[in-house]
Amino acid sequence: MLYERLVTQFPTSGRYWRLYIEHEMRNRNYEQVEELFQRCLMKILNIDLWKCYVTYVRETKSSLPNFRVKMKQAYDFAVEHVGIDFHSTTLWADYINFLKSEATSGSYAETQKTNAIRKAYHQVVMTPLMNIEQMWRDYCNFEQMSSKAAAKRNIDAVSRTYVHSKRASAELESCTRGLIRGATSVPLLGTVQEIQQLKIWKQFIAWEKRNPTRTESNALLVKRVLYAYEQCLLCYSHCAEIWYEAALYLQRASETGNTQFKERWAEEAAMLYERATTISLSNSPLLHFAFADFEESRLKFDKAEAIYKKLLEKKDIQPTLVFVQYMKFSRRTEGIKAARNVFKQAREDPRCSHQIYVAAALMEYNISKDKAIAYKIFELGLKKFADDPTYVLAYLDHLSHLNEDNNTRVLFEKVLATMPAEKTKEVWDKYVEFESNVGDLASLLKVEKKRAASMRGNSKMDPSQCREALLLVDRYSYLGLIPCSETELKVMEHPCAAKVDLEPASG
Amino acid sequence: MLYERLVTQFPTSGRYWRLYIEHEMRNRNYEQVEELFQRCLMKILNIDLWKCYVTYVRETKSSLPNFRVKMKQAYDFAVEHVGIDFHSTTLWADYINFLKSEATSGSYAETQKTNAIRKAYHQVVMTPLMNIEQMWRDYCNFEQMSSKAAAKRNIDAVSRTYVHSKRASAELESCTRGLIRGATSVPLLGTVQEIQQLKIWKQFIAWEKRNPTRTESNALLVKRVLYAYEQCLLCYSHCAEIWYEAALYLQRASETGNTQFKERWAEEAAMLYERATTISLSNSPLLHFAFADFEESRLKFDKAEAIYKKLLEKKDIQPTLVFVQYMKFSRRTEGIKAARNVFKQAREDPRCSHQIYVAAALMEYNISKDKAIAYKIFELGLKKFADDPTYVLAYLDHLSHLNEDNNTRVLFEKVLATMPAEKTKEVWDKYVEFESNVGDLASLLKVEKKRAASMRGNSKMDPSQCREALLLVDRYSYLGLIPCSETELKVMEHPCAAKVDLEPASG
Repeated sequence: MLYERLVTQFPTSGRYWRLYIEHEMRNRNYEQVEELFQRCLMKILNIDLWKCYVTYVRETKSSLPNFRVKMKQAYDFAVEHVGIDFHSTTLWADYINFLKSEATSGSYAETQKTNAIRKAYHQVVMTPLMNIEQMWRDYCNFEQMSSKAAAKRNIDAVSRTYVHSKRASAELESCTRGLIRGATSVPLLGTVQEIQQLKIWKQFIAWEKRNPTRTESNALLVKRVLYAYEQCLLCYSHCAEIWYEAALYLQRASETGNTQFKERWAEEAAMLYERATTISLSNSPLLHFAFADFEESRLKFDKAEAIYKKLLEKKDIQPTLVFVQYMKFSRRTEGIKAARNVFKQAREDPRCSHQIYVAAALMEYNISKDKAIAYKIFELGLKKFADDPTYVLAYLDHLSHLNEDNNTRVLFEKVLATMPAEKTKEVWDKYVEFESNVGDLASLLKVEKKRAASMRGNSKMDPSQCREALLLVDRYSYLGLIPCSETELKVMEHPCAAKVDLEPASG
Repeated sequence: MLYERLVTQFPTSGRYWRLYIEHEMRNRNYEQVEELFQRCLMKILNIDLWKCYVTYVRETKSSLPNFRVKMKQAYDFAVEHVGIDFHSTTLWADYINFLKSEATSGSYAETQKTNAIRKAYHQVVMTPLMNIEQMWRDYCNFEQMSSKAAAKRNIDAVSRTYVHSKRASAELESCTRGLIRGATSVPLLGTVQEIQQLKIWKQFIAWEKRNPTRTESNALLVKRVLYAYEQCLLCYSHCAEIWYEAALYLQRASETGNTQFKERWAEEAAMLYERATTISLSNSPLLHFAFADFEESRLKFDKAEAIYKKLLEKKDIQPTLVFVQYMKFSRRTEGIKAARNVFKQAREDPRCSHQIYVAAALMEYNISKDKAIAYKIFELGLKKFADDPTYVLAYLDHLSHLNEDNNTRVLFEKVLATMPAEKTKEVWDKYVEFESNVGDLASLLKVEKKRAASMRGNSKMDPSQCREALLLVDRYSYLGLIPCSETELKVMEHPCAAKVDLEPASG
């Protein structure tokens, strides 16, 4: 069925869920409608979808004897979840009209009714809403009508709150200008529009974080910020950054908040991670790592381990980085033996690349302080990755830090003897650097000569001989010092030049 | 005087030298003219300047009894130095007409004359020149006129060379299209036009390196390539890259060439470096380092040392990198004691920044294998540079590589206690990474908590809280593996994203 396929493909689209439900309502499939609301309502904080829910209750329950009770529940449910939405004004207006329409008898009931209406108005007044001015006028009328005597006092009591909300409404309107709230969430494409939309969303979220309504309730502040994140995620559910920041926000709130919410916000953070890693970002290492770290920090080691394992079961990922992080996790939480088991698993996974050997070797060196095991692991990796300059350079780096000059030289020679010439550039550079640091002049010249010979033999493959000056720049640079001006970097088209803003400088 | 100021400011401008000389010629200041030619001719291989020289000889020496001898010398001198210029066609034509105008008597003298003319034509024929076709036709006529019988044989002998030169002329014309040969050399500005002009020059030089005239004379090939470099340097004397590549080309030629030219090319390389570091690039560390390395490789240690010293005497340079390279040089050529002296000098120079301490400490660790001295030097530097994250991170890196976990922790705590909060970000990240690698969970959580507290205290200064996801990417990346897709990097505006070409990828 078309609608089912739509909501499966775009599970965060309030629009598609609503169209689906409206379709079922037209066909009077009310059971199906209830089920659909069950599936989407709590996850999709989309104002139109929630208004549709209220409409559904109004249209289908009117014949029931407890209709008004049902209706009140529906309204309360809706305003609790989406009543802070900038576009919830008509929902509030409907709700208040519904409250006003209650037939009462007796002054007690009348007072109850007035209080309920006033309570609703008060919530409106403290919320930045579209057309809040109209709602304020309605509220003032209401107070005038209910009691001329008390009106001024009642109105004065909330007028400062209203001033804040009015100002916040204007700010909100201006800081979300250009936002396309109904955008359907698709995998990221890296387009200019996407980046620009995310910028507006972030701006909106940052604005909420500054507590523009000046509420003294930390719970309300957190709720508003999370609501902004949720709105953004409806459109950008494939953006790991937003999920992570939302979860992090909750996590920090839970770390600093009082005990009442501590537990709840931490749970909500976990639920956010869970949702993200289940649906849109089930293959995102970034989110899985953040999730696992979060659970680890809550001492829920089993949950953390399950997260790594779940990700490793996916067929279509590159698992090396996952193994690296999983191994570090195991070392921290269970010790070196558990970590060695992870390394064993990784070695048996044919998709794994060289980094796991580096990580395992350095772990042995750093933790068991055992040079011999580290050496064995590096040598083991060398059997598979002797052609990979990154691996070789990591191994060389380790050896040279140990001041094992002769072993380092042996490794340089061994590797350069077999590595395909077009991959050797960096290894040769490292060799020259090594000898320039620790060798005598004779060894330096010997290596430079061999390197030059290798480059010459290789020059037919690589026509950009002109880049030698770049190598020179790299060779003489040291800890952020460069041997030429920024303008020269730019003219040479050095990769680092792009990062800096240029001003004219003399050579 | 205006002209003197012009050639002082733009010493590589053939045009200004020529205007200067023509001005003096108009005023018949011949002594001054001779002196000016002395100053510029050998350094400025500009065809118009050299034509001006020939004109000068023709116009001023005509009354001398040995005028034809002088004139012949002038022509020979000119074609030797700029006769390979694409625009030297009229110089050659003048020269040949001069030869043809010789009055002879007797068949021996006639044969001598014909041989001289033929020799000149042969040089023309092997050179890619503008309008080479006309010169070829002249040559064929000449052979026809001198001997109908031998003409075909004589012409056939060089016709293949001519075909190569003709094709090369066309190629040269096309590969230098857009080149502004007369551009005045000014300090680099990094403009688009500059970069684009340098691209054409490099293309031209690369073309010459491919030996387009198919000469079998290595000397001629090197001469042609160097001529191209010299032409480029007339316009871009402030571009270190070109000087370096030209010198490197000579150096390599000298290393591979036969003994006849070995010495000469090495000397020419040294002269190029000397010229570059004396005039346009007297403050360029890059060229001084390359020069010093070149002299070191020729075992001319005194010359190399003088180069470092000369650069250190400049008042308007940042000397740290120079000291670092000078110290390494001293260690290699004289040993650790000499290198320690350089470090001492550097410490006394108030302009010196922290990198020299790192370099000196690592040198002690790598060479004298003495952890204690290295430690002392790092601590000495810490007194001055405890606020500098780069310095601190280098020190921490060293300590953690030594597996001195407790000392490393002590250093982290000590530094973070005093460093201004806005500089601590990287140090905190490193601390978290350190504990995630070697610490137990309790220490990791403790550090993460402290770091979070520090960031929170700091958040008012740094409004881009949104960048936390970038930190996360960095934290989970390992040896080239990143925890997300390239598209995600781009959408997050991660600095690394700029380097990669993007294709749509799923999150």
